[in-house]
Amino acid sequence: MINLETLCKNAAAVKYEIQVLPTEKKNRVLEQCALALVTRREDILNANGLDMERAAEKGMPQGLQDRLRLTAQRIEAMAEGLRQIAALPDPVGEVMERFDRPNGLRIEKCRVPIGVIGIIYEARPNVTADAFGLCFKTGNAVILKGGSDAFYSNQKIVEILRDVLGKNGISADVLSMIEDTSRETAAEFMKMHKYVNLLIPRGGAGLIRSVVENSTIPVIETGTGNCHIYVDDEADPDMAVNIIFNAKTQRIGVCNACESLVVHKDIKDAVLPKLGEKLREKQVEIRGDEQVCGILSESIPATEEDYGKEYLDYILSVKTAGSIEEAIAHINRYNTGHSEAIITENKEHAEQFLREVDAACVYVNASTRFTDGFEFGFGAEIGISTQMLHARGPMGLKELTSYKYQIYGNGQIRE
Amino acid sequence: MINLETLCKNAAAVKYEIQVLPTEKKNRVLEQCALALVTRREDILNANGLDMERAAEKGMPQGLQDRLRLTAQRIEAMAEGLRQIAALPDPVGEVMERFDRPNGLRIEKCRVPIGVIGIIYEARPNVTADAFGLCFKTGNAVILKGGSDAFYSNQKIVEILRDVLGKNGISADVLSMIEDTSRETAAEFMKMHKYVNLLIPRGGAGLIRSVVENSTIPVIETGTGNCHIYVDDEADPDMAVNIIFNAKTQRIGVCNACESLVVHKDIKDAVLPKLGEKLREKQVEIRGDEQVCGILSESIPATEEDYGKEYLDYILSVKTAGSIEEAIAHINRYNTGHSEAIITENKEHAEQFLREVDAACVYVNASTRFTDGFEFGFGAEIGISTQMLHARGPMGLKELTSYKYQIYGNGQIRE
Repeated sequence: MINLETLCKNAAAVKYEIQVLPTEKKNRVLEQCALALVTRREDILNANGLDMERAAEKGMPQGLQDRLRLTAQRIEAMAEGLRQIAALPDPVGEVMERFDRPNGLRIEKCRVPIGVIGIIYEARPNVTADAFGLCFKTGNAVILKGGSDAFYSNQKIVEILRDVLGKNGISADVLSMIEDTSRETAAEFMKMHKYVNLLIPRGGAGLIRSVVENSTIPVIETGTGNCHIYVDDEADPDMAVNIIFNAKTQRIGVCNACESLVVHKDIKDAVLPKLGEKLREKQVEIRGDEQVCGILSESIPATEEDYGKEYLDYILSVKTAGSIEEAIAHINRYNTGHSEAIITENKEHAEQFLREVDAACVYVNASTRFTDGFEFGFGAEIGISTQMLHARGPMGLKELTSYKYQIYGNGQIRE
Repeated sequence: MINLETLCKNAAAVKYEIQVLPTEKKNRVLEQCALALVTRREDILNANGLDMERAAEKGMPQGLQDRLRLTAQRIEAMAEGLRQIAALPDPVGEVMERFDRPNGLRIEKCRVPIGVIGIIYEARPNVTADAFGLCFKTGNAVILKGGSDAFYSNQKIVEILRDVLGKNGISADVLSMIEDTSRETAAEFMKMHKYVNLLIPRGGAGLIRSVVENSTIPVIETGTGNCHIYVDDEADPDMAVNIIFNAKTQRIGVCNACESLVVHKDIKDAVLPKLGEKLREKQVEIRGDEQVCGILSESIPATEEDYGKEYLDYILSVKTAGSIEEAIAHINRYNTGHSEAIITENKEHAEQFLREVDAACVYVNASTRFTDGFEFGFGAEIGISTQMLHARGPMGLKELTSYKYQIYGNGQIRE
């Protein structure tokens, strides 16, 4: 097994090679990668079989086993993902701004790759091909650190992709995988800021916290979403019920699902009974404050902890508020900077909510479930950023780039 | 002295207050801050006198004492800096992009403040007013951690600015200063990611390294510049000498000064003798490779270490290269991602250098000294970013902002 520092150094050493690859070549390689995944499907399924055996032996819960399992259809979806990335426009080289200075200097701000991107993720092996595709298209070298559960699957997918790179005369180190899945190696990886320019953790809150607290590489936090919907006193009650039901139950295990509700006290009687009835269809458990429990007798009293929790389950916390200001303060206190929505027919309230709520995506009269690279029209995404720097919200190809200033002179010196 | 965590918490608690201040109000407050600095000049000079006394007692070098010293003129310059910031356009609220989705959602990408910005800096007390002005104008709360040498000066300036905030009905905690200047407190401050959204170190390479290695808050690295000029075989020798002389000697202690030269071997005989003669005017010491020492007899043999060094002094390392590729590889190995220049009349070489050299600012036929917020027309700057994420190169007001997506619907749910 290759030494970790050597692996990172090797990735840094080839990053300039991939930065200058023409778009057509990158697209051709991505198409070939897609083809290779499908052609070598049996190899991947065999490797995945080893992971599934270990998972069964150690008694992994069925839900997680399902996320780990690959099928011919899922491999086809991975390949299709790469083909879609190939079809997207290449952001590298775009001139973002151009301006002339009085001394005759012409300054161009141009999009460039970031360099070496590290991705630390958990069970799902489809992330392997996906993360490679997004980084490769944007001219970035990538180092993957997957979870131990998907070890054999990831290893095989990486082997196949590296084969394609090699056959195209591209250094295979443009894609590498850290085979030691221990926590110690993960911790060591997070200190490789000399070689790695960006680290993206994809997984649960625990993984993300650990990366934020230990990494010396710049990190983009992704994916934890304690998303709120606020039902304003001037909301359309039917629209509110419809949107909340969608945001809570359409898919529960995702970061843009609604986890918490704030209802204006003047509309609670018009909304909560209808909402309770609708949510009962999906057995959603409601944890509410005193006023909520007074209206919905089946609900459980909410604790302080409930308001800060991303359930990823059929559970919803509900709080009443006396004003929009109180609702906004509550949301800004408990949210995770992901997605928040107001349901209202009042334009001023909508504008106030949009302006004052601190989150990557703030909605008026729509479900929080739309926070997604595909729904935004980006074509693909590496994750949803919940922090303030570099990129916020869905991160597509553009968000995997940096820029440089290219300055044209004819002898200018500074006086 | 207030507890560090409380101080950070207080800043986070008032960040939403400043985010929604109208531009006119922010400008008025900045004007009043400028006036207050001038009006209370004697208070500042007295406080600075205490710092200067301590500096003399401990035998601080004259150069550093000069950076620490305030005068009526320097206080006027600080005030003028705030007035200039007031006069710049406010980036907050700008709609950066607007797009409609097939389902009728309208998505607007809007510029917003980052939140709480921490700034760790060293001796110069003028940074105090400057950093406050830039952060305040962009709707960010700021926590300053200055060096112990400027303690009394910084304390007084902060007191005056906070007075103005209070008189304008703005929470003074929008600006705070960590009064404990110990390293332990600095280290503790770097772990306050719960409250602080961005940390910018302004100072020498040692400070920046310490912040990068210890901070759990996202960091923007600024200011170390091992800037190169490459003299191509198709360069105009006179232009080359003129630009190198300017970039090396116009001001030596700044991050955009030229520290290292790469000269194509086919042009070395036409350039180096003239250059040596010109640099002798300023007693610039040359540390060169064998070929350079062969032409310029007064030069000293360069070591490996020389090529990686930011001298900030009248010293220049010089290396010969057999090709533009060799020059680019050398620069990408030793540079700090700041500013690099090529001198050439060959358009293809210029384009290759612009494309392949990895730095925030890459110049053709101009001095590296232009990497500066004012020279770029940004009107002001908080520093020069030498990293890949969020912002690269001169950071003006826009670079102190993030964005949010504001999404307008009329009942959309996800199918």
